[in-house]
Amino acid sequence: MRLGVFFNHTGHHAASWLHPDAQIDAGVNIDHYVAIAQTAEAAKFDLIFFADSAAVRDADMKAVSRAAQYTAYFEPTTLLAGLAMATKRVGLVATATTSYNEPYNIARRFASLDHISHGRAGWNVVTSGNVAEALNFGRDEHFKHAERYARAREFVSVVRGLWDSWDDDAFLRDRSTGLYFDPEKLHFLRHEGAHFKVRGPLNVPRPVQGHPVIFQAGTSQEGREFAAETAEAVFTAELTLEGSRAYYADVKSRMEKFGRRADQLKVMPGVNPVVGATQKEALEKHDYLQSLIHPDVGRAFLSMLLGGANLAPFDVDGPLPDLPATDASKGGTYGNVVALARRENLTIRQLYMRLAGARGKRTIIGSAQFVADEFQKWFEARAADGFIVQPSYLPGSLDDFAELVIPILQERGLFRSDYEGATLRENMGLERPASRYAPK
Amino acid sequence: MRLGVFFNHTGHHAASWLHPDAQIDAGVNIDHYVAIAQTAEAAKFDLIFFADSAAVRDADMKAVSRAAQYTAYFEPTTLLAGLAMATKRVGLVATATTSYNEPYNIARRFASLDHISHGRAGWNVVTSGNVAEALNFGRDEHFKHAERYARAREFVSVVRGLWDSWDDDAFLRDRSTGLYFDPEKLHFLRHEGAHFKVRGPLNVPRPVQGHPVIFQAGTSQEGREFAAETAEAVFTAELTLEGSRAYYADVKSRMEKFGRRADQLKVMPGVNPVVGATQKEALEKHDYLQSLIHPDVGRAFLSMLLGGANLAPFDVDGPLPDLPATDASKGGTYGNVVALARRENLTIRQLYMRLAGARGKRTIIGSAQFVADEFQKWFEARAADGFIVQPSYLPGSLDDFAELVIPILQERGLFRSDYEGATLRENMGLERPASRYAPK
Repeated sequence: MRLGVFFNHTGHHAASWLHPDAQIDAGVNIDHYVAIAQTAEAAKFDLIFFADSAAVRDADMKAVSRAAQYTAYFEPTTLLAGLAMATKRVGLVATATTSYNEPYNIARRFASLDHISHGRAGWNVVTSGNVAEALNFGRDEHFKHAERYARAREFVSVVRGLWDSWDDDAFLRDRSTGLYFDPEKLHFLRHEGAHFKVRGPLNVPRPVQGHPVIFQAGTSQEGREFAAETAEAVFTAELTLEGSRAYYADVKSRMEKFGRRADQLKVMPGVNPVVGATQKEALEKHDYLQSLIHPDVGRAFLSMLLGGANLAPFDVDGPLPDLPATDASKGGTYGNVVALARRENLTIRQLYMRLAGARGKRTIIGSAQFVADEFQKWFEARAADGFIVQPSYLPGSLDDFAELVIPILQERGLFRSDYEGATLRENMGLERPASRYAPK
Repeated sequence: MRLGVFFNHTGHHAASWLHPDAQIDAGVNIDHYVAIAQTAEAAKFDLIFFADSAAVRDADMKAVSRAAQYTAYFEPTTLLAGLAMATKRVGLVATATTSYNEPYNIARRFASLDHISHGRAGWNVVTSGNVAEALNFGRDEHFKHAERYARAREFVSVVRGLWDSWDDDAFLRDRSTGLYFDPEKLHFLRHEGAHFKVRGPLNVPRPVQGHPVIFQAGTSQEGREFAAETAEAVFTAELTLEGSRAYYADVKSRMEKFGRRADQLKVMPGVNPVVGATQKEALEKHDYLQSLIHPDVGRAFLSMLLGGANLAPFDVDGPLPDLPATDASKGGTYGNVVALARRENLTIRQLYMRLAGARGKRTIIGSAQFVADEFQKWFEARAADGFIVQPSYLPGSLDDFAELVIPILQERGLFRSDYEGATLRENMGLERPASRYAPK
């Protein structure tokens, strides 16, 4: 079982920063991140994971100013380069958008991070679908869904090509012949496509891992195709065992046509475990955080999951209305949220109460035994190869999971007791990719 | 006197990697960088400095493959985030181009670095004038000289505006009122200019230093204007005391019209000190490295200083020919190199032998006493506020300077014996800028 932990400022819960034990200035407190990264490493997590956006969250300012997340925080590749120096084995995965970056710059930064960390870098490839980011990059609106994915596919292909610029053994560093590298082992990409024209070569040696591990999170049809073609781990938002089994079977069945085996992609649903000594204590912990959610925050949070849908005209104690179809309604998160509301006939308030704790992902509330059982059930049912754990608040919810749940998973032989290897690939059981220029 | 040290892979000398004591894999050896950064900090240098390019050096591959520098190495903002964790006081200055980046992304990364390092970040603002970079970013040629500077001016102004997005006291983090920040203290830049349209705000809190320190290196007319308007430190290539005095007076005299005082800009010539126990030993050290320069490397190196001029048709033992005027011939380095060749009537070979040691900057060869005298002479003659030291090879030439020259400068009261403050600004004697939104 693969386990990652998603660090999101003061924690995932919409009211996390209001918890008295949350690190209140988490977003720019490097000591906080060092401490929780070291906790994750001591617990043998495969990786720590960071989301990203190239904008302050664009929503009703009354709501935004009541939340800690998605306003102001470290840029994740910079942060992870710092954390690489304070850890030795845990993987370091950062999100970076293909919409408002250049492939050459992204290829360089992740290759550098991979060298600095001795082979622990991962890149979570996303496309940007919110106007707040567009407005920071000379555009008036974001790229449309299909165009975003077309650009992303080409972007990833360019980045991978650039990572192969230097053969693994290109650097001779031979004082006797005076040759620092072998020019035969340096390759010019000469890519010319619909979105990018990039000659190369990259000015960083081939990454320690060959390529940093590619993560992806899309669950739309385009997202699934993209994952099947490109991703090595996919971070999903399925809320039910059946939904996750169906997703798992579907995305893995799409891989063969791209010449890939099913085990070359790890399906990792996001999950928010709220762990107590007993079921009752866990419920109390959860209820306490829920009680801290301000109604402005809850409504704005739901609006964000629904692609910016305006919920202001609707009674918070009435049902979720039928919303006009938009570009965002094709997304996987959107579909899951609407399905949940319909299935359980929830009011807007009930819906945001249900989702704000895990930001649209699944919440499991219970004793450590119960949480471990749920993890095992999904894993054995082929609904997941592992999980991205999203602690409600930090550091407390991470400590709970690491101290109480992980030992049970280890005892049952489901999770490692020590790292298998030195690189993220080795620990995740992913092969090191051969260079595209290597002899077949 | 301000002192920086410029870390360039195995060292500045064109043949540095051939020195048996050079760290041969320096470009991607993080332990090497940690060690030399800690040496610089122990010696109380103001800062460590990294150049950058978004391309592998484009030159005759026979020459490129015989040199370690400017081929493959860490991306500097990523590297410096790592080094921030291994140091406490030394400033961290990275070059990043305004030609092939977006201001929002650069503002974020340097703001993050400033927070990670608790106020030690500096940004060396450059424009890209070589076609190898252009080809990696969808262009067939680089931007022309004047356009590059126009874009750079607007770029820096946008970045500074973004750094002011949040007032210093914007984050209330007040659990009693439930307000994480004060919306009145968040500012939207709403910039619309000839090159960029950026709404903001930046999703990083205001940097510890207000703004990271702005470095610049241009010595052309546009470069001097840009420095006078914008830079807080300028890294120059003057080779003579008189030239440097003239530059110093000129650039400082241009500041008043921008409402700035002369002490708000530090002039820091690059210099390569070759230090021996005696003058003779220093000369032997230098001659040894010079003897390692391969003729292919020397000729290509000179071509690079001369903006890519093709020297292949000319006899290496003949004079430097009159070269056709190009965009590059307006640059300060170009002018200095041609002037040196003419003044001393040097052949191409003599010229590259003279310059390859310090990559177009000044070389001082002698005892520690002699080197300290030269530093003092320039400093007291108002030819420099400090220097960027460019060690010939690393770590050896840095060790020599730190062990032999710095104690003399300290003894004479010219250089600090301990850091004055916690931030790069405090150590360099630069004020923390007020936000553009602060009450006047």
